Amino acid sequence: MDQHWYVFVDLMGTFAFGISGALAGREKRLDPFGVFVATYATACGGGIIRDLCLGSLPPVGMSDWRYLACVVLASAVTMWMHPLLAHLRHPIVWFDSLGLGLFAVVGAQKSMQLANNVEVALVLGVIGAVGGGVLRDVLLNRVPIILQKEIYALAALAGAVVQVSGHWMGWSPALTPWAAVSTCFVIRSLALRYSWSLPRKW
Amino acid sequence: MDQHWYVFVDLMGTFAFGISGALAGREKRLDPFGVFVATYATACGGGIIRDLCLGSLPPVGMSDWRYLACVVLASAVTMWMHPLLAHLRHPIVWFDSLGLGLFAVVGAQKSMQLANNVEVALVLGVIGAVGGGVLRDVLLNRVPIILQKEIYALAALAGAVVQVSGHWMGWSPALTPWAAVSTCFVIRSLALRYSWSLPRKW
Amino acid sequence: MDQHWYVFVDLMGTFAFGISGALAGREKRLDPFGVFVATYATACGGGIIRDLCLGSLPPVGMSDWRYLACVVLASAVTMWMHPLLAHLRHPIVWFDSLGLGLFAVVGAQKSMQLANNVEVALVLGVIGAVGGGVLRDVLLNRVPIILQKEIYALAALAGAVVQVSGHWMGWSPALTPWAAVSTCFVIRSLALRYSWSLPRKW
Repeated sequence: MDQHWYVFVDLMGTFAFGISGALAGREKRLDPFGVFVATYATACGGGIIRDLCLGSLPPVGMSDWRYLACVVLASAVTMWMHPLLAHLRHPIVWFDSLGLGLFAVVGAQKSMQLANNVEVALVLGVIGAVGGGVLRDVLLNRVPIILQKEIYALAALAGAVVQVSGHWMGWSPALTPWAAVSTCFVIRSLALRYSWSLPRKW
Repeated sequence: MDQHWYVFVDLMGTFAFGISGALAGREKRLDPFGVFVATYATACGGGIIRDLCLGSLPPVGMSDWRYLACVVLASAVTMWMHPLLAHLRHPIVWFDSLGLGLFAVVGAQKSMQLANNVEVALVLGVIGAVGGGVLRDVLLNRVPIILQKEIYALAALAGAVVQVSGHWMGWSPALTPWAAVSTCFVIRSLALRYSWSLPRKW
Repeated sequence: MDQHWYVFVDLMGTFAFGISGALAGREKRLDPFGVFVATYATACGGGIIRDLCLGSLPPVGMSDWRYLACVVLASAVTMWMHPLLAHLRHPIVWFDSLGLGLFAVVGAQKSMQLANNVEVALVLGVIGAVGGGVLRDVLLNRVPIILQKEIYALAALAGAVVQVSGHWMGWSPALTPWAAVSTCFVIRSLALRYSWSLPRKW
C-alpha cells in the first residue's frame, strides 16, 4: 500500500471518527472543550490504547500533529458548521467504515511487527479500531454502542484476520492491506445496508 | 507452588471471572459479541492494567492463547448452556474466590520481581485481582460493585500483604503463595458466608 | 523551583484532589474502601495515565509512598472528620487550583524531558492535571464534570503552554514553572470568582 495514500485514508478515518465523537458530545450538551475531548477520545483513543499495549510510546495520537489537526477540524466543523454535516452524512459514514477497516489493518500489522503474536494482532487490531468509540461512550456515560447492536467490531475482526493471514502466509505486502480493508469495509457496508445485527434472543 | 498446578488454578480463576462478566453482559441484553467483550474485560482486564503499569508488554491476557480460550469457553457456556450454570453456581463462587486470591498473589509477586517496591506490589496485587470487575462495571455503565459492598478487594489486599511479607522476610517461595491465596480465600469465604460488609454509616 | 518546596506543593495538590474524590465517593454512599479508591483515583489517576503514556514505569502514584500517604489522609479526614471540612472549604479550593497548575506543569515538563515533543507535552500536561477527576467521574458513573462546565482543563492547558514555551525558548528553569503555575492558578481563580464558563449555545 502506497505510504502517502495510506496516511491520507488514515487521517480521513480519524476525521470521520472524530465527527462521530463531536456529534455525540454535542448531543450530551457538552461545552466546546468537552466536545473537543469527546472528539479526541473517539478519534485517537483506540490507537492510544493499542500503542500502550504494544509499548510504542508516546502513542501516535499524541506525538503526530496531523492527528490532532484532524481532531481540531472535526470538532470545529461539528460545532460551527453544523448544517454542513447534513450534506456530509453519506461521506462520513463511508469514511467511518473505511477508517474502521484501516485502523484494524494498521493495528494488526503494527502488532505483528512489534509483538509477533497472532492473538495480540487480532485483539489489538479490533481494539485499535473500536477502542475510540468505546472510550467515547464510557466518557459520555452510556453502554458502548458496539456491545449492543450492529456488525461493527466483527467487521474489524474480519479485516484483522485477513491482514494477519496475509502476513502469516507471505501474501504480497502491497496487496494484503487492501484485501483486508476491503473485507472490513464490505462487511460493514452490507451490515449497514441490510441492518444486520447479531441475534439477541439467546 | 508447582508451575502446572498454578497455571491450572489461574485458568480456573479466569474462567470463573469470565462467567461473572458474561452473566453481567447477558443481564444488560448485550449481543453475543458484547457478551464476549464483557467476558474478556472481566477475566483479563485486571491483568492487562497490571501489566501496563509494570511495562510487561504485551499483556499476558493478550499474548497467551489459553486465557483467550477460557474467555471463549466462559462466554459460550453462559450463552448456550445457561441452565448448566444453575448447577455450577457453587463451584463458580468458589473459583471466583480462588481466582481472586490467585490473581492477587500473581500480581504482587510479579510486581516485586519487576519493580521491587512493596507499595507497587500491594497496589498492583489488588488492581490485578479486582481491575477486571471494575472494568466490567464501567463498560456496563454502573458504579463498580466493589466500591459499594462486600469484603472483596480487602481480601485481595490481605493476600497481597501475605505474599509481599513472605517475599520480604524470605519465607519459602514454595509455601508463601499458598499461605497468601488461602488468606484471601478464607476472608472472602467468611465474608460471603456471614454477609460481612464494611459499615456505611460513617 | 526549589525541589523541597515543589514536592510540598505537589503533595498538597494530591491531598486537595483526594478530598474532592473522597467527597464524591461519600455522596455516592460508597463503603470506606470505595471512598479510598475514589480518593486514590482522583489524586493519582491523572499522573498514572501520564506515566503510562510516557513509559515512565511504575507510575509515581504507585511507587512513591508519600502520595499514598496523602490519599490515606484525605480519605480519613473526609470520613471521620467531616465537620472539619466545612472549615477547610476555602483552603481546599485553593489547593485544588494550585494542584491543577502544578500537575499541569509537572506533566508538561516530564513529557518534554522524556518525549521531547511539544504536542505530547501539552496533551499530557492537561491529562496529568485533569485525568484524575475524569477517572473519578467515570468510576462514579457520571459524565466527567470538566466536559460540561467551568474553565478547568483550559486553565491547565494555559499552564502547560507557558511551561512548554519556557522550555522551548530557554527561559530560566527556576522561574518558568512558577510563571506557568501562576498562569493556571490565576485563570482558574478568576473563573471560579466570576463563574466563567464556555458558552454552550452553539
